[in-house]
Amino acid sequence: MSAEQVARAARDASNVLQTITGAQKSAVLKRIREVLEERRSAIVEANRADKEAAQKEVEAGRLSASLFKRLDIEGAGGEKYATLLQGVDDVDRIADPIGQVTLARKLDSGLDLYRVVCPVGVCLVIFEARPEVVVNIACLAIKSGNAAILKGGKEASRTNQALADAIQHAIATAPTPEGAQSPFPREAVQLVATRDEINSLLEMDRYVDLVIPRGSNSLVRHIQNNTRIPVLGHADGICSTYLDASADLAKAVHTVVDAKTNYPAACNATETLLVHAAVVESVFVPVVRALLAAGVRIHADERALAAIEAAGAAQGFEAQVTKATDADFGHEYTDLDIAVRVVESLDAAIDHINTHDSKHTEAIITEDRKSAEWFMRRVDAAGVYWNASTRFADGFRYGFGAEIGVSTNKTHARGPAGLEGLTIYKYYLFGDGQGAGDFGVGPGKRAFAHEDIPLDSVRGRFVL
Amino acid sequence: MSAEQVARAARDASNVLQTITGAQKSAVLKRIREVLEERRSAIVEANRADKEAAQKEVEAGRLSASLFKRLDIEGAGGEKYATLLQGVDDVDRIADPIGQVTLARKLDSGLDLYRVVCPVGVCLVIFEARPEVVVNIACLAIKSGNAAILKGGKEASRTNQALADAIQHAIATAPTPEGAQSPFPREAVQLVATRDEINSLLEMDRYVDLVIPRGSNSLVRHIQNNTRIPVLGHADGICSTYLDASADLAKAVHTVVDAKTNYPAACNATETLLVHAAVVESVFVPVVRALLAAGVRIHADERALAAIEAAGAAQGFEAQVTKATDADFGHEYTDLDIAVRVVESLDAAIDHINTHDSKHTEAIITEDRKSAEWFMRRVDAAGVYWNASTRFADGFRYGFGAEIGVSTNKTHARGPAGLEGLTIYKYYLFGDGQGAGDFGVGPGKRAFAHEDIPLDSVRGRFVL
Repeated sequence: MSAEQVARAARDASNVLQTITGAQKSAVLKRIREVLEERRSAIVEANRADKEAAQKEVEAGRLSASLFKRLDIEGAGGEKYATLLQGVDDVDRIADPIGQVTLARKLDSGLDLYRVVCPVGVCLVIFEARPEVVVNIACLAIKSGNAAILKGGKEASRTNQALADAIQHAIATAPTPEGAQSPFPREAVQLVATRDEINSLLEMDRYVDLVIPRGSNSLVRHIQNNTRIPVLGHADGICSTYLDASADLAKAVHTVVDAKTNYPAACNATETLLVHAAVVESVFVPVVRALLAAGVRIHADERALAAIEAAGAAQGFEAQVTKATDADFGHEYTDLDIAVRVVESLDAAIDHINTHDSKHTEAIITEDRKSAEWFMRRVDAAGVYWNASTRFADGFRYGFGAEIGVSTNKTHARGPAGLEGLTIYKYYLFGDGQGAGDFGVGPGKRAFAHEDIPLDSVRGRFVL
Repeated sequence: MSAEQVARAARDASNVLQTITGAQKSAVLKRIREVLEERRSAIVEANRADKEAAQKEVEAGRLSASLFKRLDIEGAGGEKYATLLQGVDDVDRIADPIGQVTLARKLDSGLDLYRVVCPVGVCLVIFEARPEVVVNIACLAIKSGNAAILKGGKEASRTNQALADAIQHAIATAPTPEGAQSPFPREAVQLVATRDEINSLLEMDRYVDLVIPRGSNSLVRHIQNNTRIPVLGHADGICSTYLDASADLAKAVHTVVDAKTNYPAACNATETLLVHAAVVESVFVPVVRALLAAGVRIHADERALAAIEAAGAAQGFEAQVTKATDADFGHEYTDLDIAVRVVESLDAAIDHINTHDSKHTEAIITEDRKSAEWFMRRVDAAGVYWNASTRFADGFRYGFGAEIGVSTNKTHARGPAGLEGLTIYKYYLFGDGQGAGDFGVGPGKRAFAHEDIPLDSVRGRFVL
């Protein structure tokens, strides 16, 4: 199938998905879990073949060890596969967002307007290395009534194919609950293979409504630069933690060490530490000691460097402290590195963040509520945190039950995006033969009533 | 100032606007109304100069009469200027969307998450001919806490400048209410002049968050094709009305005539009439008679044409009936023209719409609730109407109090967009020194509580 045929099939599936009931979606999700259990040995076998081929690539220096590690679908004791199955159950249990009425208004007697949540339509998901994304995204798409086109990394091609086959088999063999109006469309989930197809698919703005890249900075940037389709995601994750003039020492040490070392490759790890000049000795120096002991390399500006030297804080860790250059600020290390800059004021910290960072997640450590509120309001980012590690920026930690991705966009979905990121709404207008010309000023013309209808009274009206 | 300087100044203004109070916004809006009254004669004078220059362009055939008409800011009896002033009051009176809490959740004891509505940031608004857009959009931007960069058509350059000067003077001279934390930034509203600046501004995705084009199809398409910044709006407005097998005759005649003739140049005017084969004689023929009498030109497919001829419906209006070609379907006439196609079924009508139309607004005329619901669910459009004219798709008719534009996007804002289209949200996390590593499975680890906090209890907490 060509890219256009795939995209068209997805669009057709999306049209059918508009009339799929919640019970049908649940039946398919339950069947997916069953088939993933039934076919476990075949899927694990495909994964072993991928890993063997990848091992050779690692040995030849063509694949990184961290990418190789992400390929694995089983886990040492099978815990990764168990998590995969659990994820299907979790998505099945999330409340169905589709059909919710978010606005109800009587425009006139016999002319009622409703805003109803519906699927975005067709989503193209591009990911690297981690084959569990096939299952994760397929389930989220099914739950939210979207058609998904999936494109994985070639290192995981056998595993991806085995998982996609299992999902399509599950769709084809799921029982059809009573009340269904349309059969569940097979093309709700499609997997594409070659890199060529991606560039063609990125041109299919006629059929594809949303692109979700899950992968490296360069992958996301390539996609953002090569499509007119809206992209949900983030290229950079450049987050700062700011130690304010009234930062508490224990909170500063604990949040900064966590934000840097809990998972340095994550997009919500702190890359820059901003320090108010008033607490360089009292708070920053102890934070540095803790970071150095945790193996973090410090890229310090001149004033921070002088303070570290004056306190002898780098003793025994000399190799971990270097002088920062301009390029260190606004840089995503994705490793145990942190840039440090001393600032004269809260506003200077805010300016630094709004200039250098990527609008992802930013934290202030302070005991001063006024400073915290000023920071949280003025900083332009998806997450603004007071006395907490930037690492909390995550759909599961926020309690969304699932995560599509983390968005640094300023429209549609911002921050960790749950199922809501895959939904939009449409306006239903129920009339009785009215024309717009019936309303206005003058003899015989009617005036709009514009009375809100209580949402409780319409709840359930549009849910299938 | 260069395009980059303008964009940067807007970004700086946007940062300041995050801490502007509702009282400050209201004071500025009231002052804008005052200054527009004080400077009325100068503004009208500038408008006359624009009209005189434009008159010469019309005479030379370089400007259309309809564009010329839109230039006027006064109206014959001053009613257009009165509407302009009234619009400022209306925006002042809309509820302030900023600071509303849309999610509140206790992640753990002492770790509370809030999702709070905030401005999108910097909006670039590009419009043609109608100078009142300067005031309209400036007020909406101010109300929603966004910085606006405005670019109008060169025909209205003197009027636009006079209006923008008035707005900037109003910002500079508005009283500062008690409780203000920052002065209202002058660069909240900026006007740019040349066409070169637009192409440069469209590249400023670092500073500009949203582009709102208000103008011709070709203007919108040019913008969509030349920027990475999200675009809120629509290029085409291709809407259909479908006469179902059980359409009521009177409702069909009234809604179709209204949808076609009430304002044919509008994006929500019906361009295509789809007719179920069963009602070609009983409903379609009378609809044709009414359309012809209203001066509408009918572009009919073969079966519709045969029915018109068999009924002698075109008698006296022969010149208004022609045979449709494929190009007539999915075409936006913006005039008293309508394409007609006879279809065999409801699903065929839905397929036609989902293939040819622009996802704007679609209507079904039927007495059959099941058909209506099937149509409304399956049709992929911002508005799906039952027994009502497509012309109702409009922010004022929906009771939004204001309209930024009508969006055919599938993300962020869909359909007529009110102030909400200029807002997004950010996540505030209030902690007590927690790290993400404190949570998880194992000794000493905590589990997330994920308890929803009643929104009523936090209402007002973040509103300035």
